[in-house]
Amino acid sequence: MTIKLYDLAGAEEDRRFSPYCWRVKMALKHKGLAFDTVPWRFTEKDAIEFTGSTTVPVIVDGKRAVYDSWEIALYLDEAYPSRPGLFDGSESRALSHFFSLWTVRNLHAPLLRAIVLDLYGQLHEKDRAYFRESREKRLGAPLEQAGGDPKKALAEFHGALEPLRPVLVQNTFVSGKGPGFADYILFGAFQWARSVSPQRLLEPDDPLYAWRERMLDLWDGYGRKAKGYPVGT
Amino acid sequence: MTIKLYDLAGAEEDRRFSPYCWRVKMALKHKGLAFDTVPWRFTEKDAIEFTGSTTVPVIVDGKRAVYDSWEIALYLDEAYPSRPGLFDGSESRALSHFFSLWTVRNLHAPLLRAIVLDLYGQLHEKDRAYFRESREKRLGAPLEQAGGDPKKALAEFHGALEPLRPVLVQNTFVSGKGPGFADYILFGAFQWARSVSPQRLLEPDDPLYAWRERMLDLWDGYGRKAKGYPVGT
Repeated sequence: MTIKLYDLAGAEEDRRFSPYCWRVKMALKHKGLAFDTVPWRFTEKDAIEFTGSTTVPVIVDGKRAVYDSWEIALYLDEAYPSRPGLFDGSESRALSHFFSLWTVRNLHAPLLRAIVLDLYGQLHEKDRAYFRESREKRLGAPLEQAGGDPKKALAEFHGALEPLRPVLVQNTFVSGKGPGFADYILFGAFQWARSVSPQRLLEPDDPLYAWRERMLDLWDGYGRKAKGYPVGT
Repeated sequence: MTIKLYDLAGAEEDRRFSPYCWRVKMALKHKGLAFDTVPWRFTEKDAIEFTGSTTVPVIVDGKRAVYDSWEIALYLDEAYPSRPGLFDGSESRALSHFFSLWTVRNLHAPLLRAIVLDLYGQLHEKDRAYFRESREKRLGAPLEQAGGDPKKALAEFHGALEPLRPVLVQNTFVSGKGPGFADYILFGAFQWARSVSPQRLLEPDDPLYAWRERMLDLWDGYGRKAKGYPVGT
């Protein structure tokens, strides 16, 4: 039975920008599981009410609904142990959990400020009031003010990435030899930005640039084919 | 043959405060390897010149000298593969490398500002000019100015630890079920502070507090018995 994923969309149905939904899509590809995505908007709370969640990602796998990207990753490895693991053991799982929380705190926060106005412009009309209210509360300022200095926000984002660079000089992936859930966590942030914003995040001489290319190429260019801006502009 | 570790000491020979040397001491205990420590001061460059390094930790294992705490960890797992691993695989190794670089950037930096004046007071007299010059260069300010607001620096340190708390609610150690090199990386920061400063870093209701207790208890209280201030004061 094909897994169903509720996947955040913009005004255009095929513009899928949620960093957390990207984590899950990459995880499903990693496990080789068939899935269909259902475009979903922030204000379509009714459509996922049966799952107990008010946000996506939510997956429905037969009779089971699971939400929260981290919980979904744990579920997939538990439910499909014979398929490639998202973590290679309990140590990697604990360190990836830290990596997920670090990404949200240290990468998503400045990145949101860098792209928030671009993102707002890509939203479905019916989502705009909800987004403005919830994000202005989170950011503690009007969107136009919080997003008023994208260069400064990108500089902060760039600095926060520093501890990853030596790792990606020495390893092909954040998870070492092959991609793992930690890579999908990080890639989610880059796909989020690329889906809604033409801003250039990385220079070609950055070890992260080559890593992102490798991520975009996985599974016959699954991430690269998604609607968004080219990364090299 | 017993491994020899050059270990940074203060005015008192048994006050061993280097966070990087603590990583190595815990790693040696983890592997169950016999070792002797040699007290070393910042200005004793001649004593380790034969190793090619100007800083500690340096280990001498038979005819082999290895320096840099990360390189030493890799060496120990490679040279002693039949003993307990510091990493449970290449994924954990890559994520622990990130964790090490994150710790230096996000934890050591504010912690140095919080404890730098206490640390300076514990140094051997012959190290003071060297420490002042090198650290003022790194901090971009006189020690008294960089270390002038320890409460603010500790608040920053406390905030940077945030992504670790949920991990340590769900796991006994940063490395999951048992302690690994990621735990020794983090513990090094806490031992550094405790060795030279009476400042309280954590409250008892913090999940990190219970984790630090577990770390202090390892190997019959090896870390707790070291000269330093009690953590609960």
